[in-house]
Amino acid sequence: MSKLKYAMVGGGQGAFIGGVHRKAIALDGQIELVAGALSSSAEKARASGRELGLADERNHASWEALLADELQRPASERIDFVSIVTPNHVHFPVARAFAEAGIHVVCDKPLVHTSEQAADLGRVVAKSGVVFGVTYNYTGYPMVREARDLVRKGAIGQVRKVIVEYNQGWLATRLEGGDNKQADWRTDPARSGMAGAIGDIGSHAENLALTVTGLEIESLCADLTSFVPGRKLDDDGNMLLRFTNGARGVLIASQIEVGCENDFRLRVFGSTGTLDWRQEDPNYLVHAPIDGPKRILTRGSPWLGESAKLATRLPTGHPEAFIEAFANVYLGVAAHIRALQAGSKPDPLAADYPTLADGARGVRFIEKTVESAASSHKWTSLQ
Amino acid sequence: MSKLKYAMVGGGQGAFIGGVHRKAIALDGQIELVAGALSSSAEKARASGRELGLADERNHASWEALLADELQRPASERIDFVSIVTPNHVHFPVARAFAEAGIHVVCDKPLVHTSEQAADLGRVVAKSGVVFGVTYNYTGYPMVREARDLVRKGAIGQVRKVIVEYNQGWLATRLEGGDNKQADWRTDPARSGMAGAIGDIGSHAENLALTVTGLEIESLCADLTSFVPGRKLDDDGNMLLRFTNGARGVLIASQIEVGCENDFRLRVFGSTGTLDWRQEDPNYLVHAPIDGPKRILTRGSPWLGESAKLATRLPTGHPEAFIEAFANVYLGVAAHIRALQAGSKPDPLAADYPTLADGARGVRFIEKTVESAASSHKWTSLQ
Amino acid sequence: MSKLKYAMVGGGQGAFIGGVHRKAIALDGQIELVAGALSSSAEKARASGRELGLADERNHASWEALLADELQRPASERIDFVSIVTPNHVHFPVARAFAEAGIHVVCDKPLVHTSEQAADLGRVVAKSGVVFGVTYNYTGYPMVREARDLVRKGAIGQVRKVIVEYNQGWLATRLEGGDNKQADWRTDPARSGMAGAIGDIGSHAENLALTVTGLEIESLCADLTSFVPGRKLDDDGNMLLRFTNGARGVLIASQIEVGCENDFRLRVFGSTGTLDWRQEDPNYLVHAPIDGPKRILTRGSPWLGESAKLATRLPTGHPEAFIEAFANVYLGVAAHIRALQAGSKPDPLAADYPTLADGARGVRFIEKTVESAASSHKWTSLQ
Amino acid sequence: MSKLKYAMVGGGQGAFIGGVHRKAIALDGQIELVAGALSSSAEKARASGRELGLADERNHASWEALLADELQRPASERIDFVSIVTPNHVHFPVARAFAEAGIHVVCDKPLVHTSEQAADLGRVVAKSGVVFGVTYNYTGYPMVREARDLVRKGAIGQVRKVIVEYNQGWLATRLEGGDNKQADWRTDPARSGMAGAIGDIGSHAENLALTVTGLEIESLCADLTSFVPGRKLDDDGNMLLRFTNGARGVLIASQIEVGCENDFRLRVFGSTGTLDWRQEDPNYLVHAPIDGPKRILTRGSPWLGESAKLATRLPTGHPEAFIEAFANVYLGVAAHIRALQAGSKPDPLAADYPTLADGARGVRFIEKTVESAASSHKWTSLQ
Repeated sequence: MSKLKYAMVGGGQGAFIGGVHRKAIALDGQIELVAGALSSSAEKARASGRELGLADERNHASWEALLADELQRPASERIDFVSIVTPNHVHFPVARAFAEAGIHVVCDKPLVHTSEQAADLGRVVAKSGVVFGVTYNYTGYPMVREARDLVRKGAIGQVRKVIVEYNQGWLATRLEGGDNKQADWRTDPARSGMAGAIGDIGSHAENLALTVTGLEIESLCADLTSFVPGRKLDDDGNMLLRFTNGARGVLIASQIEVGCENDFRLRVFGSTGTLDWRQEDPNYLVHAPIDGPKRILTRGSPWLGESAKLATRLPTGHPEAFIEAFANVYLGVAAHIRALQAGSKPDPLAADYPTLADGARGVRFIEKTVESAASSHKWTSLQ
Repeated sequence: MSKLKYAMVGGGQGAFIGGVHRKAIALDGQIELVAGALSSSAEKARASGRELGLADERNHASWEALLADELQRPASERIDFVSIVTPNHVHFPVARAFAEAGIHVVCDKPLVHTSEQAADLGRVVAKSGVVFGVTYNYTGYPMVREARDLVRKGAIGQVRKVIVEYNQGWLATRLEGGDNKQADWRTDPARSGMAGAIGDIGSHAENLALTVTGLEIESLCADLTSFVPGRKLDDDGNMLLRFTNGARGVLIASQIEVGCENDFRLRVFGSTGTLDWRQEDPNYLVHAPIDGPKRILTRGSPWLGESAKLATRLPTGHPEAFIEAFANVYLGVAAHIRALQAGSKPDPLAADYPTLADGARGVRFIEKTVESAASSHKWTSLQ
Repeated sequence: MSKLKYAMVGGGQGAFIGGVHRKAIALDGQIELVAGALSSSAEKARASGRELGLADERNHASWEALLADELQRPASERIDFVSIVTPNHVHFPVARAFAEAGIHVVCDKPLVHTSEQAADLGRVVAKSGVVFGVTYNYTGYPMVREARDLVRKGAIGQVRKVIVEYNQGWLATRLEGGDNKQADWRTDPARSGMAGAIGDIGSHAENLALTVTGLEIESLCADLTSFVPGRKLDDDGNMLLRFTNGARGVLIASQIEVGCENDFRLRVFGSTGTLDWRQEDPNYLVHAPIDGPKRILTRGSPWLGESAKLATRLPTGHPEAFIEAFANVYLGVAAHIRALQAGSKPDPLAADYPTLADGARGVRFIEKTVESAASSHKWTSLQ
Repeated sequence: MSKLKYAMVGGGQGAFIGGVHRKAIALDGQIELVAGALSSSAEKARASGRELGLADERNHASWEALLADELQRPASERIDFVSIVTPNHVHFPVARAFAEAGIHVVCDKPLVHTSEQAADLGRVVAKSGVVFGVTYNYTGYPMVREARDLVRKGAIGQVRKVIVEYNQGWLATRLEGGDNKQADWRTDPARSGMAGAIGDIGSHAENLALTVTGLEIESLCADLTSFVPGRKLDDDGNMLLRFTNGARGVLIASQIEVGCENDFRLRVFGSTGTLDWRQEDPNYLVHAPIDGPKRILTRGSPWLGESAKLATRLPTGHPEAFIEAFANVYLGVAAHIRALQAGSKPDPLAADYPTLADGARGVRFIEKTVESAASSHKWTSLQ
């Protein structure tokens, strides 16, 4: 199997998530970095690319230069996809331009700043037919896929209630305005978008809950707060959810809960069973059937479904973690791209990744959350 | 130290919680059962009393008979207090009558059905000057008391957020209308009151959160659901909270979460630290300071405060549990009664128990929750 | 059901375990303390008895006086059994005298100092026919009884291996010779016997392992150490075990493992499954079948066996703990005594408690451990 | 930083651990696979190399051909090191030949079959001066490095006791002789060596314990068993340890403990504190100081030492796992190689990996364990 080639936009020196994407992509030896425009600063972009061993002619000072250069290369040299790992406000122009040019795209989340942008992007992608993945990376965990399978198979009956919480504490004090580049842009409306914690991690919570349950949110009632003085965006959000099937939910996303590291947990309560998964202990999924004791499902076990098995690299007890989950999203995109290149129908089990539709739904979720919180906290419809 | 004497109203054959009260009271050998009216059925009352070894002349067919008999006995024989463990709708008349007669009262929660009843009871108790305890038993856990102490001492700074959840699953299917006496009265508005899960366990959540944090709820926005067909009261409740100091909160109380046994958890997030306590693992309290690793505080440790120490019977690692916590509430009431009898001022450390004010606040919480849920789920003020 | 009456020997002011026995006995309201000789110091004995509300004429300065007084009382007043909770060296004379006098006995562990004493006691008890319980209290936990049941029912196939560990840290520094009465006598060969940690907690480990598995130790190879300078008895013991059925084992008992509170854990590995129980989290038992995921069995669940159910007071999720387990041992003895008094055959399910044979086996285990450790650590036969 | 180049010997189709090595090496983008002799079967070797994208001229049918080819290449093309991931019996000849030829080596464990081979290899390596790493991969975990640091810094005082256990269950039934290639060679003395569970995982336990504590084993007393009928090597081993500083220990290594996945745990008890680490939950290290509550140290925290920090890629709460630990061993070797290539002194913090000396000590440990178990289980000296 020949390697796919990709370029990265963003993720230069001092960035955090770009390096994670690169490690995840490198892990399985199926995809290689060949080009980049790694920073909005031309100088930093070049330096970052050199550090990563990019050839000079494919190490660009801007994403526009990268795109132009790719388009003039022969197909055999050209990248198979671009990975966009910039701050949020840059997602839209880059994704739109590459998609329009017919280059497959992987874009970080939240996808864009507004539903209008998402709709526009949707039209462009529909027209060009490119593969478009959004790195809701947590859905790449094998036990998340097992949870999704169990819900689909009816293992917990009808879903009645969802509690999804994403607890962090790193922004409990004022970090912005100092050396912390992450804190800086994530609390800046111009770069982060209209929401803070809700945009950054609440959107992960929304996507995980909907991906696993297959439900849609009918309406929500949100309370957003900025606890740290001077902060411009919410650093704490809590909301009640109603799903279209009548199920109820609670979603919590906070970055001021001291001592919480990346405590992302999903509980799905059905009429005949419950599922409980925690990101900080991701190799396990607790399944409580109504008529027997709790069962601890572990990644790598023979009694798991095909989807979890396919997403697994190591035997039980040899823990896999964050990077492998991230890598699974890229493998899903890669499987889709390879199928298109081979002219075959993608295997849905392999081409398993969050799509543009997930991304657009997430943008709408953020908008409606902010709307509910601003409007005397009324229940706000998403349908 | 001579033993205190008590009578029990309710808690006869087939009841659950009465036996727990009796074991808790018996545990420390300081209080003894001498009289009772153990059921609303005269026959069952008598049979239950005989089973417990009550003397015939103190084994009554009704609480009215019990009260009359006690009042004609000499002080040396008379009960020191009555313990009321009946279904909710009986609390008010019994508590009112004994309090009016000058007999100290311990009453189960929720206290009464309406704020009007609570106010009336408050006037009676104020006039007679009796001790009045309400068995919010979870506040009797040593590590809950430690949490309360740590908040008071400023160990976590200013409280910003509270997540309190009380997850049960025993009512996930229709149990009422069958053999399950518990399920029967708890889902019956006439006996249980205007709320189901919120009344039974939501009120515990409210009391625990307010006891530990010392905060008051400013307003709430609730969503109540009855998932099981035909059920007359809520079996699932979720709400957003705002506290008078500006803190935010989430309260979850459910009895349809399959696999959840008695999963009652309180998290309090402050500006400089976090506390996390779980009722199913009650001997531990996790304290996350903002500037160091999480600390696992264990009951019985020398570095705990006086309140937790006083509530502790066994060394660390020798687990204490539900019954000991219950017993601590009774020991608190007993300390108050003994102080009154001795004409001394009660030691607040010893006379530590939930009071009539806690009970009345809990009734108002239930009323406002139901009001919010019924009124298109608006934010509803409690102040 | 009329209450049984008992006297206590030992357990006066400043003692630890006597108070635990009393609380455990009081819990269920079926047994009452009527007499005592609570200390070897006459003055302290009297003061302790007064504190507990003993009538003066049944509050004795010595166990000899207690015994003499009981024997001259009419049967209707006389104690049903004596509970011996003294330091170890006093067990033998007291137990022997009461048993010889035909009074049922509950004695703390380790039973006596030597196998000769145990054999002598065995002859006395056989002759008098008294009920004789030994408070290996950990076997009273419901989930320990469930584990024993599961092994008996073949749920884990043939037992191949046992790992039993009892980790404590309270003697990691020199506490003896100061105010700590517990530390004082437990590290004194004259009062504690030939072993320290092995006698105090290793004997619990041995009994738990053999009770649950039904196996017998064929031989052992032990290493005993006194880490704290000046300590006269072992404070750390580790040994390899071979069982008569060919199973292997590891037993660890230590009191110098800093941070360990009462970390007593038993793992039993069979050919088709594994059981794992921890005393510090006693309401759960993990069962790993060879052909499916781990199952978390919880006390109070409907799918448990009769023995665990009978030992349970509260619903699942309402934790029971140390005192309830202790109480179960007393209830087992009481059931046996009541059956004898009623002239009926004891129900083995109810009359479930560690016997004199358990106690004698434990003494032999201690002797052989010390012998192995002293003899260049050779494998030493117990058969 | 230019990439290092390596060749792999072993790890072809159907093998397990070779693929793990490759993913670990690929993760950080610093080292690339350029050549290989991936199987002892010429045909499978070629097919495996093609699958991995090796150029035909560097895809060899045997390790001898690989070595010959490398030696005739110019330095600029030549591999920087070889990674040996064959079954155990092949380690010695390959490692010896490459080391003798002046090529750096990374070899899987256990290093070789006998101490004679280890000594011979030691002489060769000393003469050629190559870097030689042994993939005791568990020492690459950041929290293992933190534990080692804490011991060195005196955070737990003098080490008194070590409990190290490596519990697996995958060989609880007879898997050898069927399709399971892993089971096949690991239970075959000709390929695995003189020990089974002790060689495969007991050697990891030994290395982890000695690496973290800095202690050496003075003597041991072992019991080895083959529980599964027909199995030629031990599938369960338990032993008592004595260290040269007087500390005591217990080492457990088993592959028949049903339900145990890769339950590798190390506890180190010192005079003033305890450390507890579990491989299945590797991002945490529990530190129990004698004078305060347990502290949960988490990977990525600012209060960790330099060694743990250097081994960390992601923030706290974003779990790292098995592959990252493996990668850390390779990064340590790479740092050493780069320093040699640059003519500089290796930074010990960076060039942190298990060496030939660790490997040789591990071989001796296996030999002495087998000797002790065979000799009526006597204590056997390692010094």
